[in-house]
Amino acid sequence: MFSPRGFFIKSQKINTMGKLRVAVVGYGNIGRFSVEAIQAAPDMELAGVVRRDPSNKPAELADVKVVANIDELGKVDVAILCTPTRNIPEVAKSILEKGIYTVDSFDIHGQVWDLHQSLDAVAKQHNVAAIISAGWDPGTDSVVRTLLMAMAPKGLTYTNFGPGMSMGHSVVARGKKGVKNALSMTIPKGQSIHSRMVYVELEPGYTAEQVYAELKADDYFAHDELHVIPVNSVDDCKDMGHGVLIERKGVSGKTQNQLFEFRMHINNPALTAQVLTSCARAVVKQRPGCYALPEIAPMDLLAGDKESLIKGLV
Amino acid sequence: MFSPRGFFIKSQKINTMGKLRVAVVGYGNIGRFSVEAIQAAPDMELAGVVRRDPSNKPAELADVKVVANIDELGKVDVAILCTPTRNIPEVAKSILEKGIYTVDSFDIHGQVWDLHQSLDAVAKQHNVAAIISAGWDPGTDSVVRTLLMAMAPKGLTYTNFGPGMSMGHSVVARGKKGVKNALSMTIPKGQSIHSRMVYVELEPGYTAEQVYAELKADDYFAHDELHVIPVNSVDDCKDMGHGVLIERKGVSGKTQNQLFEFRMHINNPALTAQVLTSCARAVVKQRPGCYALPEIAPMDLLAGDKESLIKGLV
Repeated sequence: MFSPRGFFIKSQKINTMGKLRVAVVGYGNIGRFSVEAIQAAPDMELAGVVRRDPSNKPAELADVKVVANIDELGKVDVAILCTPTRNIPEVAKSILEKGIYTVDSFDIHGQVWDLHQSLDAVAKQHNVAAIISAGWDPGTDSVVRTLLMAMAPKGLTYTNFGPGMSMGHSVVARGKKGVKNALSMTIPKGQSIHSRMVYVELEPGYTAEQVYAELKADDYFAHDELHVIPVNSVDDCKDMGHGVLIERKGVSGKTQNQLFEFRMHINNPALTAQVLTSCARAVVKQRPGCYALPEIAPMDLLAGDKESLIKGLV
Repeated sequence: MFSPRGFFIKSQKINTMGKLRVAVVGYGNIGRFSVEAIQAAPDMELAGVVRRDPSNKPAELADVKVVANIDELGKVDVAILCTPTRNIPEVAKSILEKGIYTVDSFDIHGQVWDLHQSLDAVAKQHNVAAIISAGWDPGTDSVVRTLLMAMAPKGLTYTNFGPGMSMGHSVVARGKKGVKNALSMTIPKGQSIHSRMVYVELEPGYTAEQVYAELKADDYFAHDELHVIPVNSVDDCKDMGHGVLIERKGVSGKTQNQLFEFRMHINNPALTAQVLTSCARAVVKQRPGCYALPEIAPMDLLAGDKESLIKGLV
């Protein structure tokens, strides 16, 4: 049915009077912070956590249902997918097929459109919706870039990341010969140019120069300024803080030199998990299909009634 | 009908293959910049300008149809309302009743919800849509505040305006005894606190102290730090640049100290006009009713097909 707010509500499935029942699928960093964000949300209830080995139950999940298969959790309205990004297409499809809404933070920029296309078909077929790539980049940064384009349609936008840890680059660096452990930091150099500072624990007999050569030969590192720094303990350098500076200088109508900046300094997995959780609230308000975050009305992300939100935010 | 994109398109009225025909109603600063923004938009056509005295036709409107009544413009899809804010409720209603979509930048924050309610009924009755308060504040700033709430639901947001000219305060100051001309600048002092610097041309025999006392007695100026500065020419001080700094420090899930900043330095009427023009594109994609900007999917504001937009921005 169409609610008074104009949204498609699958009222048979989603009891909008009660709390939204949300499951977390995958329990790495993002999964852990998603559990916290759901617990902090006034309008949600944690249905449980799905992980490969449900007997692996850390202290903070003592009162949480941990299962191997989402079917064991009873009624689930939305699943927050926190599995590795490469598994998202498959996991999202299988859960949408069960008639459960999904949100994910799929972050391979070049493959977002393909995922959008394929999940759109599955979601429509099963009368549910999916929000994809709903972290901070892609995600809320995408919304900021979209908004800045609307404010100044001609011009240039720069997205400058960091300083902060790149999970992807750290994993690749850890896989190189002679590297026991590695942390790859992304350092912004301005105008969307970045350098990589890779902190490594070396295996005996290896040098930073050898690791540098290995990394430079890898497409993942070949195109950026690179520094390899040996350290005694990578773990002692780890901090999940991250940041971004989005800049646009552009033209509104025929007026030049409109200047915009969006900046943040945040705990990376905590923000990703919060965006996913806010999207879990928004996804049930969408009509069947697949959406990227700029296709969602920002107000759908918030708890509360329309009148209070408009009075408080507009 | 519902288009493949999932939007309600009044296909009988809006020929989505051709250009959107947009009229500008009112020809002050915002109206003038709106004409430019429409002319710069690849997917729009200026239907004409509606103003009280159509014989008042400045050089830049030489090739533009200028009329006293919107009915004289032929087919109009969307009207951008650039009349004084207090006239918006009445003007919007009368144009929606003609089956024409409207966008406005109504900026009396405390009355936005009432306008939303009343135009929602009119728009639905006439099967069109309206986007209200679609400037930069209220407007795009409202979207930023909404997004930051979704990213860190607990915390404090500060909106700091300026430095820049306040049209409203300048008009009030010009109305005071002994004031020939006045320019009121809004100066941000941090944490949403502002001071007012009022530059005045005095009538003979009046002093800055007298004007200060008059202004301090007016509710419009009573609550802020105030400075009155006599100048020889107010016009020589005028600059339509403005700015804002929105700051939020808040909590994502259970993680404290998430820090966000949005800053801009812009030509004020040019940005307002551009936002209105982008909303003219978005409003025809909405289902009948009235919307504030945070209720609109940001991607609806942009020209271009969904695939290119997602590939370029997400």
